[in-house]
Amino acid sequence: MPVGTQATVKAVPHGTLESLGAQIILANTYHLYLRPGHDSIRRMGGLHKFMSWPRALLTDSGGFQVFSLTALRKVTDDGVRFRSHLDGSSHSFTPEHSIDVQIALGADIAMAFDECTEYPADRRRAEESFRLTLDWAHRSLAHFRAHRHEVVWHESGVPPQEDGVPPVPPVWGLGRDDRTQSLFAIVQGGMFRDLRRQCAERLVEMDFDGYAIGGLSVGEPRELTLEMISEVLPLLPRDKPRYVMGVGYPDEIEQYTRMGVDMMDCVLPTRAARHALLFTSVGRLNIKNKQYSEDQSPPDPACRCLVCCRYSRAYLRHLVQSAEPLAATLNTIHNLAYYLGIMRRVRQDLAQL
Amino acid sequence: MPVGTQATVKAVPHGTLESLGAQIILANTYHLYLRPGHDSIRRMGGLHKFMSWPRALLTDSGGFQVFSLTALRKVTDDGVRFRSHLDGSSHSFTPEHSIDVQIALGADIAMAFDECTEYPADRRRAEESFRLTLDWAHRSLAHFRAHRHEVVWHESGVPPQEDGVPPVPPVWGLGRDDRTQSLFAIVQGGMFRDLRRQCAERLVEMDFDGYAIGGLSVGEPRELTLEMISEVLPLLPRDKPRYVMGVGYPDEIEQYTRMGVDMMDCVLPTRAARHALLFTSVGRLNIKNKQYSEDQSPPDPACRCLVCCRYSRAYLRHLVQSAEPLAATLNTIHNLAYYLGIMRRVRQDLAQL
Repeated sequence: MPVGTQATVKAVPHGTLESLGAQIILANTYHLYLRPGHDSIRRMGGLHKFMSWPRALLTDSGGFQVFSLTALRKVTDDGVRFRSHLDGSSHSFTPEHSIDVQIALGADIAMAFDECTEYPADRRRAEESFRLTLDWAHRSLAHFRAHRHEVVWHESGVPPQEDGVPPVPPVWGLGRDDRTQSLFAIVQGGMFRDLRRQCAERLVEMDFDGYAIGGLSVGEPRELTLEMISEVLPLLPRDKPRYVMGVGYPDEIEQYTRMGVDMMDCVLPTRAARHALLFTSVGRLNIKNKQYSEDQSPPDPACRCLVCCRYSRAYLRHLVQSAEPLAATLNTIHNLAYYLGIMRRVRQDLAQL
Repeated sequence: MPVGTQATVKAVPHGTLESLGAQIILANTYHLYLRPGHDSIRRMGGLHKFMSWPRALLTDSGGFQVFSLTALRKVTDDGVRFRSHLDGSSHSFTPEHSIDVQIALGADIAMAFDECTEYPADRRRAEESFRLTLDWAHRSLAHFRAHRHEVVWHESGVPPQEDGVPPVPPVWGLGRDDRTQSLFAIVQGGMFRDLRRQCAERLVEMDFDGYAIGGLSVGEPRELTLEMISEVLPLLPRDKPRYVMGVGYPDEIEQYTRMGVDMMDCVLPTRAARHALLFTSVGRLNIKNKQYSEDQSPPDPACRCLVCCRYSRAYLRHLVQSAEPLAATLNTIHNLAYYLGIMRRVRQDLAQL
């Protein structure tokens, strides 16, 4: 899932995302809650209509951003109080409030409100975070079940679409058949296998529409990421989406997909692109480097994306050096094409098994 | 002509420019001379190939940027010494050097090196500028005639094209038939009708491939712009392109075209877009304004561009408010569609006369 924090995948027009084959975008509840505001988006018919994106959307719970972006956080059993990173104003998220905001946004998939365990965290801290996450998952689910019919596109059954926009590809038939949103739970537990296992088992008992593994890619060594995924994945139902949050590098997403992970999101392809880092079949290129100044070969000789078919490394380097906005656009398009290409290839491989 | 200062129309991918119907782009000699350098661009096959733009290109002479962007300029009869706005390094442009740089860049149309008269300028100053411009036009033309065959695409007859790129629409058959570039002269003379007239007559005697009226839109009242164009235009050959530099607002470009002007360039549609100003059939919109925060109508209800067909005013406002790079892209696409739409309509009207 390309990340579209503020209801836009930075620097890329929607039509280009569609032609790249992006089926679903992740948008950030915390950012959209602050600006333009979830009530405003609801009044405008929900996030699909507001941003004019007819394909699937997922909103995170806001928890991760509250923990990573805000100052003066105060966590209680009830929820989190925090100050906005935009203007310092005071706000609070509880599980119920996060769900209300996500229902107002109206993405296809909403996420239960969790507490993301930092790394490193000792046993005591991980247990506390595990306890909160389970309690908040209960409350998220109860509130979601009581209010899920309030999503603005409940009546029509699918998120509103603009005329002339291509039909929505089904994402596992989630939400749309039920004429409402889906809710996923998030497995936490720090880097403790038994806590992870317990957390997964308890969440599965609650019967969510899908399951995510959170609190990974937060600074731990990669073997530990893999160990936690290997521990948790077999405990999650095979007939429901299994989602690893916040990963990863190209080889990681391929590895996890082959292990049975269905969904991932990461800012890496888009953020790296804005810092002139391209992922290619011949390795990572820092396209800013002087060695590319007269290199007329395509960014990735094996890639057929619109950037690699038209522009040279020398031209991309010139755009970066000149601080031209087109640099971010073209670099991002290529990186997304590369990531989505990996996923397409792996899906084909898996379909042949 | 959309302005593509650094070999890119800021924030817009080339394919989008093609689908908008842009036939020709203006690139700035001064900027490309400094970065990545004209020799580098020549080694890479010229500007068309470097930036992967198969349609027509025009380069200005560098004179205007030297006068507007650089510090410590020193003008002599020979040329101009100046310091780079990038790093303060010392450079000089003479008519011969400007032509050499433009031949290295290899645009379809090059411009004679001129001295742009500032506004206001008294008679004595305008006469001096007029004298220099005529002298430099002579030298530009002589040097161009001696070296025009050195353009990198001279052998092939047309600028190099990438495979699979749509064919180049002819721009008045200029350059391409001659298998080399065209050179246009620039009429100066401040706001003095007799100087303007004399300048035009002397330049026409020299027999350039086309003629531009420069030194307008430099701060003078609009009636004066119109007066100068009205004075000069009838003196320029009807069978050669007549180009007014650096204009203008939508109603201006329509007015001048109906008077017989064939070409114009202006940063207004692109620069205004980056400052959230949209030109529409219902007037200018500052899309940042709060009044648009929940306005779900298209930016311009009469426009069929890809922005107006898909996105709402509320969404564009959100992108601007959130400092998202997509704001510049979408706003620029609409403004260019609006400007190019005016030109298309006027061309159709004129074809029916």
